[in-house]
Amino acid sequence: MYVLVAYDVEEKRVPKVNKILKKYLTWTQNSLFEGEITEGLLKQCMAEILPKIDPAHDSLYVYRIANPKHIKKVVYGVEKDFESMFL
Amino acid sequence: MYVLVAYDVEEKRVPKVNKILKKYLTWTQNSLFEGEITEGLLKQCMAEILPKIDPAHDSLYVYRIANPKHIKKVVYGVEKDFESMFL
Repeated sequence: MYVLVAYDVEEKRVPKVNKILKKYLTWTQNSLFEGEITEGLLKQCMAEILPKIDPAHDSLYVYRIANPKHIKKVVYGVEKDFESMFL
Repeated sequence: MYVLVAYDVEEKRVPKVNKILKKYLTWTQNSLFEGEITEGLLKQCMAEILPKIDPAHDSLYVYRIANPKHIKKVVYGVEKDFESMFL
């Protein structure tokens, strides 16, 4: 399965959420992560993140594409990498 | 076709990029838009946006899913709307 995860959480919780997502997926840009993942690992990832966010103020969007062949990505401009973003 | 568009552009260009994307897609959160769109309208949207961004510094990610049934979205926490974000 391929997933895209976008989050909008309060600034103080951003590092925690980034740290967890980085274990399971690849950082794309800003608050967006993506990658191939199994159902089990996605569950594990969500089980780690959900207790860290405030459901009354934060939001987390998970887009699931069962077959990775069904999603095509086109990048315009520069592709940034996680390390340069958070250094 | 279903598309997700995520951008990372310099702050001064954000309002322009948002304004164009809002004409074609639905704002989801931060710098992420999504929605069903035809090939022709997506081309038109890109033709409007690309001259507004600086390809040496900005980036625009377009994820295309030919059949909207192939993508499933799950939202945790709050769903925000465009108007409240930019007021």
